[in-house]
Amino acid sequence: MKVAVMGYGTIGSGVVEVLDINRNSITKRAGEEIDVKYILDLRDFPGDPIQEKVVHDYKTIVDDPEVKIVVETMGGVEPAYTFVKAMLEAGKHVTTSNKALVAAKGAELIALAKEKNVNFMFEASVGGGIPIIRPLNSCLTADEIEEITGIVNGTTNYMLTKMSEEGLEFDDVLKDAQAKGYAEKDPTADIEGYDACRKIAILTSLVCGQQVDFEDIHTEGITKITATDIRYAKAMGRAIKLLASSRKVGDGYVAMVAPFLLPSSHPLYSVNDVFNAIFVHGNVLGDAMFYGSGAGKLPTASAVVADIVDIAKHQEVNIAVEWSSKKLELVDCGNMENRYFVRTTADQKDVRRVFGEAEYVSAEGVSGECGFITARMSEAEYQKKAAELGNVIQMIRVG
Amino acid sequence: MKVAVMGYGTIGSGVVEVLDINRNSITKRAGEEIDVKYILDLRDFPGDPIQEKVVHDYKTIVDDPEVKIVVETMGGVEPAYTFVKAMLEAGKHVTTSNKALVAAKGAELIALAKEKNVNFMFEASVGGGIPIIRPLNSCLTADEIEEITGIVNGTTNYMLTKMSEEGLEFDDVLKDAQAKGYAEKDPTADIEGYDACRKIAILTSLVCGQQVDFEDIHTEGITKITATDIRYAKAMGRAIKLLASSRKVGDGYVAMVAPFLLPSSHPLYSVNDVFNAIFVHGNVLGDAMFYGSGAGKLPTASAVVADIVDIAKHQEVNIAVEWSSKKLELVDCGNMENRYFVRTTADQKDVRRVFGEAEYVSAEGVSGECGFITARMSEAEYQKKAAELGNVIQMIRVG
Repeated sequence: MKVAVMGYGTIGSGVVEVLDINRNSITKRAGEEIDVKYILDLRDFPGDPIQEKVVHDYKTIVDDPEVKIVVETMGGVEPAYTFVKAMLEAGKHVTTSNKALVAAKGAELIALAKEKNVNFMFEASVGGGIPIIRPLNSCLTADEIEEITGIVNGTTNYMLTKMSEEGLEFDDVLKDAQAKGYAEKDPTADIEGYDACRKIAILTSLVCGQQVDFEDIHTEGITKITATDIRYAKAMGRAIKLLASSRKVGDGYVAMVAPFLLPSSHPLYSVNDVFNAIFVHGNVLGDAMFYGSGAGKLPTASAVVADIVDIAKHQEVNIAVEWSSKKLELVDCGNMENRYFVRTTADQKDVRRVFGEAEYVSAEGVSGECGFITARMSEAEYQKKAAELGNVIQMIRVG
Repeated sequence: MKVAVMGYGTIGSGVVEVLDINRNSITKRAGEEIDVKYILDLRDFPGDPIQEKVVHDYKTIVDDPEVKIVVETMGGVEPAYTFVKAMLEAGKHVTTSNKALVAAKGAELIALAKEKNVNFMFEASVGGGIPIIRPLNSCLTADEIEEITGIVNGTTNYMLTKMSEEGLEFDDVLKDAQAKGYAEKDPTADIEGYDACRKIAILTSLVCGQQVDFEDIHTEGITKITATDIRYAKAMGRAIKLLASSRKVGDGYVAMVAPFLLPSSHPLYSVNDVFNAIFVHGNVLGDAMFYGSGAGKLPTASAVVADIVDIAKHQEVNIAVEWSSKKLELVDCGNMENRYFVRTTADQKDVRRVFGEAEYVSAEGVSGECGFITARMSEAEYQKKAAELGNVIQMIRVG
């Protein structure tokens, strides 16, 4: 079984490494040996054992009928989209770790794979090594999924954990994360929530079976979280986590990426450092959670190789994936109901006047402001009341 | 697609209920409507909407070619084994929630299903609603699983959580669990670890691909855990959990069911109440965990129905399951290495003489004894030293 790997970066080289480390067991499970024939990259890798396999033109792969499976680990929508489309059109199976590609073009590529009776798989695009795409497709099929909420970005989870454990400010933790290689030089996609947004778009599409456009999802990052917020969280016995969440509301879905204050009883509360986890609530299953390494070379490669094994076992069959190109109009997140933790310089009298009964919170060493948790209300109602109150320093949703 | 349900108890009636509650989405995913044609039970159910479907002879089902899928939710090895074997031999697919049957006859029934080109599925036999069997078979295929450790018995986890939260003794908590319906009138199978033992035998068989006999697994329950042990655990910032665990040791596996003291950093530490979770360590994936409702009518039925949907999508194909009837000889658990928390009436001088350096632990309100954690050593070595020390009140492994 000949495979081509497009993009020899962290994940792509990890795939080659995993196929090598576990060659025997993978061969046994796949039913035949998996052999990397080509590696597509702009660069050459002189001295690397794979240097003989490097090609620079994707058409070399398209035109080689011996290649049955193509691994796409380049990242970004283009040229990944053009390449993947060409591979599927040539009747080759594809697995990708590329969330940007899957979020933007998933429905189209799934339909194309079906038409060509091949498979387009993307287990590694959400939650790194954590099995979540395949469980949603083939394990949770007895349920209506009423909520799917994940900690799906390792960088920000590491940063929030570090802020919580060491009382540091955002900027200092970001520098530490960059020094450790957990955050990129340009950390925007992680810290602004854009990465998590694409991932919840993918998960929501799978849950509802329709196309969810990530641009429609209300997205807040963690850049405004301060050491003072963390102090309040501790005073409440809660943890601040960047959640990517979608919930069923009537016949529709509402989706959001934002920091939330989670109680210690929530399964996601103790997911720390670079770990990821995806919480699912099904109408008959109840609560479930999938936890593991959400990023990193080998864990992510493990998910890609699991796709390769699955493809090897389904060479002649297209495994159905419910994700049509029909766009799902998300319910306006102004309708989403939450409680809200608010910090304000307004006094308690005004808080009471505007918000009615509230739960007041004080944090050690914080003065000159008032912290409180509102009653449950819609986002729209909260926004209206917050504008009326004025002087709001911070608002974090309470999960 | 006609289905028969054998055993109309909690799980069996749950299956009928789930098929009804989520009829539309299940039909869509299965590709056709799933219709319960027969219910096999010793009893009649006058007044129940299913009364017309009740049959008392399993041969009615065997002989009806219209029935393609049989659900076995009777429990126990016999007569479930005889019935299931007859169904497979008649070319019907089977899904079961019956851990006793799967642990005892799994390899044989998997082989028979393969021979008959049908499927024998058992997602609900371990971890209730938590997807773990299918993930092991089809998601973690790129890895060598080096450890699989679960909290797989909800009754004992509820009891240990309650003891920890309320400082109660074992007997009082057992009465409470029985009153709430979490423990059976005869609670032996749960509290002595027998239930967990069968489940880890199943998981280990799937991980190593061979038959693991549950009788070979060293099994301790929670009956000897006291409120004093819980106090020590708290002093150490640890939780006592009944773990069912197997680990790769060289080319072999060692398996055990016993209470362990887990640190707060362990993913299983915060799995409380009747919840279950299964922790997996893969050589490339790293740590992962699957969490959810390990028992209960609807969650368990959700797993059975997911099997039905999978079967409906694979009516003409046997999905390969690696679990041969070749028996795996487990490594003697005397070779398993751990640290050990020990309570003794011997004095520290003797502890030092026998165990060398140890970490001493004192618990609030406990006197007249000495608590300590040993260095890492094999079970055999610990047993030898403990005999030499004498006066051991309690030993709990440190995870």
